[in-house]
Amino acid sequence: MARTGRRPGNQDTREAILAAAREAFAKTGYDGASIRLIAAAAKVDPALVHHYFGTKHQLFLDAMQVPFDPMQVLPQVLSGGADGIGDRLVRTMLRVWDSSAGGAALALVRSAVSNELIAKMLREFFLRQVTRRVTKELNLDPEEGRLRVSLVFSQIAGLIMARYIIRVEPLASASPDLVVALIGPTIQRYLTEPLPRSARS
Amino acid sequence: MARTGRRPGNQDTREAILAAAREAFAKTGYDGASIRLIAAAAKVDPALVHHYFGTKHQLFLDAMQVPFDPMQVLPQVLSGGADGIGDRLVRTMLRVWDSSAGGAALALVRSAVSNELIAKMLREFFLRQVTRRVTKELNLDPEEGRLRVSLVFSQIAGLIMARYIIRVEPLASASPDLVVALIGPTIQRYLTEPLPRSARS
Repeated sequence: MARTGRRPGNQDTREAILAAAREAFAKTGYDGASIRLIAAAAKVDPALVHHYFGTKHQLFLDAMQVPFDPMQVLPQVLSGGADGIGDRLVRTMLRVWDSSAGGAALALVRSAVSNELIAKMLREFFLRQVTRRVTKELNLDPEEGRLRVSLVFSQIAGLIMARYIIRVEPLASASPDLVVALIGPTIQRYLTEPLPRSARS
Repeated sequence: MARTGRRPGNQDTREAILAAAREAFAKTGYDGASIRLIAAAAKVDPALVHHYFGTKHQLFLDAMQVPFDPMQVLPQVLSGGADGIGDRLVRTMLRVWDSSAGGAALALVRSAVSNELIAKMLREFFLRQVTRRVTKELNLDPEEGRLRVSLVFSQIAGLIMARYIIRVEPLASASPDLVVALIGPTIQRYLTEPLPRSARS
């Protein structure tokens, strides 16, 4: 899970921009913050922010120390379409969380659980982007896409809780193959099986 | 979700026992702590601890401010046997979390996520007792029971994360009936459907 952000430039200026970004994201959320306002708060030119960090997406990843970019992981899961997508998602999640990025990802989950502002940012950042992409790739109605992604989120968040945070055995030390066999079908059902009638009204 | 603990006696003595209990549970876990050692730490007679709090189970609930007793809720879920157990579990969880006990339950989850000692206590206390009971009622092999309960835990913990902590829409504000229809079948599968062959070796 290599980081892709460019890291040039003066370290103090970079740090000032990151601090301004963290404050702006916390204050107004991901959507409300803009490169222009963050640059003004850091007393630098917006072009310099773009030069150091590229997009607002990348600036957010760097400012929040998000250890991997979900938008880089998602194509591996979506390639191949609906068939087997449940297994691919669980396998990919386990690969990320069992990797060296896992510790930082765990720290981020802990922050989101204890801090409503971080929860809101992650909701806006991760879930909205992921939902948009999944809805498009699986050709779903947008409302249906939101419901299906929220169900998938519930099972993946719970898997992370059970395996990495509360460490409930035997799930905590089960092999990735076994976890995929157990939980993949749930994700598959949430993404592609017909929803109960009450969800379609 | 009424509390059942008796609350008689001298308030200072009660508080001293609760403080000693919290320390003992944190230091040695639920299993390692005994009424005898807690009484000694609080400088009271063990009979007084029993008189104030009844069992170690109830003392734990009071010391950790657990807002409802899972062993009182579980019979409602297990009555009726395997048939429809997934729906009953989800409906019961929602009733507890949407009740006035929900706020305290949420505080406990937040503590467990940020504090490894609390996570360990809850694991020993809740999961072991729940697993023993479920395994017995559903007539499962003990190892199979542990795996099935850990899977159920993963989906329920994730539902709590999605609905009450991160508040992912539309799951966060979906009606209980809809949540039961969406997630009940997952719990049912985890508890009663055949496990993949790799889980049985």
